[in-house]
Amino acid sequence: MIVKPFNEMTKEELEEVLADQRAKLDAWGEQNLTLNLTRGKPSQAQLDLSSDMLGVISDRGDCFSETGLDCRNYGILDGLPEAKRLFSELLGIPEDMIMILGNSSLNAMYDAIVRCMLFGVAGGREPWFRQGRIKFLCPTPGYDRHFTICKTLDIEMIPIRMTPEGPDMDAVYDHACSDPSVKGIWCVPKFSNPEGITYSDRVVEQFAALKPAAPDFRIFWDNAYSVHELYDEEVRLADIFELAKKYGTEDNIFYFASTSKITFPGSGLAIMAASERNLDQIRPILSTQTIGYDKINQMRHVKYFGNADGIRKHMKSLAGMLRPKFEMVEDTLDRHLSGYDIARWTNPKGGYFISLYVEKGCARRVYQLARSVGVALTPAGATYPYGRDPDDSNIRIAPTFPEVAELKTISKILCNCIKIAAAEKYLKNFN
Amino acid sequence: MIVKPFNEMTKEELEEVLADQRAKLDAWGEQNLTLNLTRGKPSQAQLDLSSDMLGVISDRGDCFSETGLDCRNYGILDGLPEAKRLFSELLGIPEDMIMILGNSSLNAMYDAIVRCMLFGVAGGREPWFRQGRIKFLCPTPGYDRHFTICKTLDIEMIPIRMTPEGPDMDAVYDHACSDPSVKGIWCVPKFSNPEGITYSDRVVEQFAALKPAAPDFRIFWDNAYSVHELYDEEVRLADIFELAKKYGTEDNIFYFASTSKITFPGSGLAIMAASERNLDQIRPILSTQTIGYDKINQMRHVKYFGNADGIRKHMKSLAGMLRPKFEMVEDTLDRHLSGYDIARWTNPKGGYFISLYVEKGCARRVYQLARSVGVALTPAGATYPYGRDPDDSNIRIAPTFPEVAELKTISKILCNCIKIAAAEKYLKNFN
Repeated sequence: MIVKPFNEMTKEELEEVLADQRAKLDAWGEQNLTLNLTRGKPSQAQLDLSSDMLGVISDRGDCFSETGLDCRNYGILDGLPEAKRLFSELLGIPEDMIMILGNSSLNAMYDAIVRCMLFGVAGGREPWFRQGRIKFLCPTPGYDRHFTICKTLDIEMIPIRMTPEGPDMDAVYDHACSDPSVKGIWCVPKFSNPEGITYSDRVVEQFAALKPAAPDFRIFWDNAYSVHELYDEEVRLADIFELAKKYGTEDNIFYFASTSKITFPGSGLAIMAASERNLDQIRPILSTQTIGYDKINQMRHVKYFGNADGIRKHMKSLAGMLRPKFEMVEDTLDRHLSGYDIARWTNPKGGYFISLYVEKGCARRVYQLARSVGVALTPAGATYPYGRDPDDSNIRIAPTFPEVAELKTISKILCNCIKIAAAEKYLKNFN
Repeated sequence: MIVKPFNEMTKEELEEVLADQRAKLDAWGEQNLTLNLTRGKPSQAQLDLSSDMLGVISDRGDCFSETGLDCRNYGILDGLPEAKRLFSELLGIPEDMIMILGNSSLNAMYDAIVRCMLFGVAGGREPWFRQGRIKFLCPTPGYDRHFTICKTLDIEMIPIRMTPEGPDMDAVYDHACSDPSVKGIWCVPKFSNPEGITYSDRVVEQFAALKPAAPDFRIFWDNAYSVHELYDEEVRLADIFELAKKYGTEDNIFYFASTSKITFPGSGLAIMAASERNLDQIRPILSTQTIGYDKINQMRHVKYFGNADGIRKHMKSLAGMLRPKFEMVEDTLDRHLSGYDIARWTNPKGGYFISLYVEKGCARRVYQLARSVGVALTPAGATYPYGRDPDDSNIRIAPTFPEVAELKTISKILCNCIKIAAAEKYLKNFN
């Protein structure tokens, strides 16, 4: 097959590509495949790596905290001291800023927004629900579940373009500093979902320096992939709390993390970190909501990992499993798409996703084509507020769950589909 | 000491009682005691009874659901089928009405109210927060944490008197059927907190027959002590869902339960049960809040108990531990207070509390006196909305946590304090 940019191809060349790729896709279609590239979830092999944790707490003797507290009983609202210390070491956040909250950081974020809606924030004047329609800034493409929270709560979403070093901070400042109905922003600051971008020091400092128009603005700093490097080289994210201290803006930050992609999704630990002033406002509300979270599971994590280095070592083993998967996708895309100038994609150094951009107006078509031969892709648009990708171009690739051999097949089919969609688009120019 | 009703005693007799009881209390004071009767929590021996559950899930092979689902991974919003079946058997509620929600039924109830506030209910017109000040009916004395939820959310609480067969249903009907701002009622229908009363069949049927003025009224049916009999004799609570079917009122009911006092508080399972129409409204909001709850812990409970009979057998063992504690308190109160006509108390057949009524205007004084010698009682008034016991008479006794010997001491001191407070009160009549 001829290799040159599609926009330089003649009608005949495009028709030849189209016919060739359609034939290939038809051949895949005959294999009755059922393949899935949508799920940002760990593979069984990854989970097996944590399975020794299951037996770590096996009798009563394992259930006592260093303070003598019986983890099997009521007591302690926001986390065992040793669990706070573990995350403090891991994330470089003082222990007294950390709360251990349940099994899901998504739930912790939802609860945090709901508290803002019903009770407002420390230093704010009124609950958000009393302030008419409010808005959130949404770096895009981004995490669909963040956007779903806004949609469900009828919070207007303003898309903010992602740049290679983080959200477009000019746009963030424009909106946040001028419009008091803008109450927050969603950030996945390290190995962002789905771009895999880590915010530059400059961007993090700009977040720390931000003086929003709304006194009750909050940065939802979802550090979901804090230790999720794929390679030995550590990718450093600047310390937003440390920088915020300089600007006196610590209260602006709600920080979240979890072990969902360290140990077990759904059976891990979620944390929230915030300033003393924020926690003083949150804790009484939290104590109305619950007597406490699952301390036995907190102890299970503490005993299994011992300390932050235990988690880091564990993450290196996980990286060893994930790296070949990411590389298989990237290599296959590279091998089959280089030279045609019809797609680009990220080569993340960590996290859970590869972000693929196909020709404008082609993402939905690629999704349909792949589906027609049994390959499930994340629906085009899912990574944008209201599911609307203005360019109809982005596709989120989640390579962690399938096996490497499956990923090879899926990626090849994906390249097929991308070429078909692009050829169809360019051929229209000749009509 | 002379034994006759205090209101028949002469001034001199009362003075003698007072001097005698003060001397006894002083003697206790010299022992530097630290005793606690406040905590409605299991003792360590109770927790030990469940400790074999800790090791039930010890490797990957234990983590697969009957559907083949890997409990260690994402998937399933509202509970494993086998966990739903376990509670369905135990509570006599169809599986498809049951959701397994996290580690705390208090949290499940808080979340349910918050959903009503922000999203309203199935068949309702508007979210509660858009309807001005709303009200809840609060059978009293009742569970302080229910009341705290209302207080925190600024929901006005209307006290409803408890009768020996449940809440005063005339009062419930008066308020609920005439005032559309009355949106709900808190019920602990079996072994109520703190009275230990189980609602009669008539009362349950009246709840089922209730046609509230508000289309978005909900009965919060907190069946916290569903299988928590202290004696062999089963105390039967009528099936509210079954009765509601007859009246077409199933949508009025939000049903809650948990294993907090079956296995481990904070590391157990919470459930919510509701009609299909309610669940259809709730599930999309829930799926915004979380991807799912801790399925490994669900599996741990399923594997440990096997079926509902496993739980019932376990509860019989727990009852064997709790019965002597309740009886020690009751016997001591009986021995030291009979004949004086200055106190009455419940003799519950199950649950976690004894409800003690001292002379009107004396509960706070009893609390203070006990505190002065190192005995912590639940603060007087705690079992009433806004902490206001209009009679200043009720004291909640939680006998589960202390040892039997401690309970003997505490109960004796309590009787001392009750006599002192009553003698002081009656002596005022002679001034």
